[in-house]
Amino acid sequence: MKTIEITPPYLIFLGTETKKHLAKTGAGLVEWRPELCKGQLSLIDNGVSLGLPDMTLQQAVDAGIKTVLIGTATVGGSIPDSWLDALEEAALLGLDIVAGVHTKLGDIPRLKAAAEKSGSKLIDVRVPPAKIPVGNGKKRTGKRVLMVGTDCAVGKKYSALAMERDMKAMGMNADFRASGQTGIMIAGEGIPIDSVVSDFVSGAAELLSPDNTPDHWDVIEGQGGIFHPGFGAVTFGLLVGSQPDAFVVCLEAGRTHVAGWEDDYELPSIEDVIDRTIAIGSLTNPAIRCVGISVNTANIPEAERKAYLEEIEKRVGLPTVDPLKGGTQRIIERLKAEFPA
Amino acid sequence: MKTIEITPPYLIFLGTETKKHLAKTGAGLVEWRPELCKGQLSLIDNGVSLGLPDMTLQQAVDAGIKTVLIGTATVGGSIPDSWLDALEEAALLGLDIVAGVHTKLGDIPRLKAAAEKSGSKLIDVRVPPAKIPVGNGKKRTGKRVLMVGTDCAVGKKYSALAMERDMKAMGMNADFRASGQTGIMIAGEGIPIDSVVSDFVSGAAELLSPDNTPDHWDVIEGQGGIFHPGFGAVTFGLLVGSQPDAFVVCLEAGRTHVAGWEDDYELPSIEDVIDRTIAIGSLTNPAIRCVGISVNTANIPEAERKAYLEEIEKRVGLPTVDPLKGGTQRIIERLKAEFPA
Repeated sequence: MKTIEITPPYLIFLGTETKKHLAKTGAGLVEWRPELCKGQLSLIDNGVSLGLPDMTLQQAVDAGIKTVLIGTATVGGSIPDSWLDALEEAALLGLDIVAGVHTKLGDIPRLKAAAEKSGSKLIDVRVPPAKIPVGNGKKRTGKRVLMVGTDCAVGKKYSALAMERDMKAMGMNADFRASGQTGIMIAGEGIPIDSVVSDFVSGAAELLSPDNTPDHWDVIEGQGGIFHPGFGAVTFGLLVGSQPDAFVVCLEAGRTHVAGWEDDYELPSIEDVIDRTIAIGSLTNPAIRCVGISVNTANIPEAERKAYLEEIEKRVGLPTVDPLKGGTQRIIERLKAEFPA
Repeated sequence: MKTIEITPPYLIFLGTETKKHLAKTGAGLVEWRPELCKGQLSLIDNGVSLGLPDMTLQQAVDAGIKTVLIGTATVGGSIPDSWLDALEEAALLGLDIVAGVHTKLGDIPRLKAAAEKSGSKLIDVRVPPAKIPVGNGKKRTGKRVLMVGTDCAVGKKYSALAMERDMKAMGMNADFRASGQTGIMIAGEGIPIDSVVSDFVSGAAELLSPDNTPDHWDVIEGQGGIFHPGFGAVTFGLLVGSQPDAFVVCLEAGRTHVAGWEDDYELPSIEDVIDRTIAIGSLTNPAIRCVGISVNTANIPEAERKAYLEEIEKRVGLPTVDPLKGGTQRIIERLKAEFPA
């Protein structure tokens, strides 16, 4: 697959971070890929912990770790100078370094020189692979389910990860396909679709879910929203290139307006998102259909969750779940019923 | 405007080209912007001519020419070595050089050094301006009409140029807005929308048609097609960012399948394109409407043209013209009727 690829196992690099919510990427890795996270490294005494064994870089190498993953979001998206000694040492020890920050790792001369010396790789998960083709729109083998959202940041990535986990637990052949930087770090591979030049965005989506066996499901992380005034083109290209057989609409309970565009844009209804996704997705897969609704209910009182999900389920007529509070099995049952082996 | 900008008047550079159809960019410039084209330069005796005065580079400088525009499409999209002496001399004389080829001008060391010495600019019209913002979706002043197509290469650019010319002749306040490389060379400014990273494509479209006076029309060159399996995301972003009040559907008479995707994709109907464009365009302009159909009839016998246009006009109920065989006045009359001053 012509995607970014990251070699496990990982040492999660926590730098000088003290706040857990700023180590979200690292926490996501530990949550969704615990088997790949062998250790953590904080540069300070009172730093944040993800509950992994603390290791020096040399200990990481001795333990067979291949990659240092920067697991924190830094203010401004750059790499603090105080981290460079450790990252340079990691590169000199032959460890790959993976980051999703704005500063490119290869633009930092000390790191570039160290990586060249040892032959290790500096991987920026914001940078798409080279030579992505234009989408060809040809039918691929295997099956695909895409997360689509009423908006950005509603839980599309976690819905896809939960579906992958639950599908595997139910004995299905499924793989999460990452289309954004945090998803790529979790999956260990993928393409940052929003960073691809627009002429090639559906071609990138085609690379992300290549031909597969008839029983295999790609569970594809969504991006943006088809009614989003800023990012809709990304959503469109991902939808057309993914040629999904099925999709799940993801939303955040209680959100009424497009986040960041509140003055001008109300959110579309779930029904609007379903209709528009089918209309556009039919171009490359005329049999596309919606199989469920995934709601992030973190922002409403727990006592209201059940009624909230039931109201949507009754109205829309599709299994409606919070993927992190009870799992996605009911959506998967629907998927199996719609697409019998 | 944060777009590519080219300084007139121009010397059209024809290199070693002998075939007129490969000097299409130069011919387009002479056709649509004759007042800006002051001379031509061929490097060979039997080279192609656009009917402009032949000039040496020094004569061009003496005549007040500011920019050398490469007016030919070269095989493979690179710049032949045999052109470099002349282009280097042009840069040393302080002339800007503009090209739309794959090789970046600034990547040719001789040209880069010459331009740095004289302070002239090397402009690649395939390279979008830096720091394009995410689309904000805010309503802008002034009015906009966008060309949309049933496919790529159906005449969207020439339809827009013909509308601009005819609108000006009818006393209206109108400007062609170029979204592709040849259009940018003709307009002298613009943004190559298909080269913009997908996160920013609607933001680029917003830059392309900024706030203007209430009576002003931007006549925006379209890209791709909203039912195109490869380039639809570009079309989507341009549509949403342009927030057009009106649009014109462009097609090529007789074409039945998506060019280059013939095995898999039939063309959508005009009615499908109208409906989908209104559905998507309503996000940023709920009053969007279609005002006409522009048909490139070059591929059908002249005797059939009238009946072909009349059949569409009767079926769709909108003014239907070939913009290069009779003008776009009937579409413009419809535009004026729909949007009275």
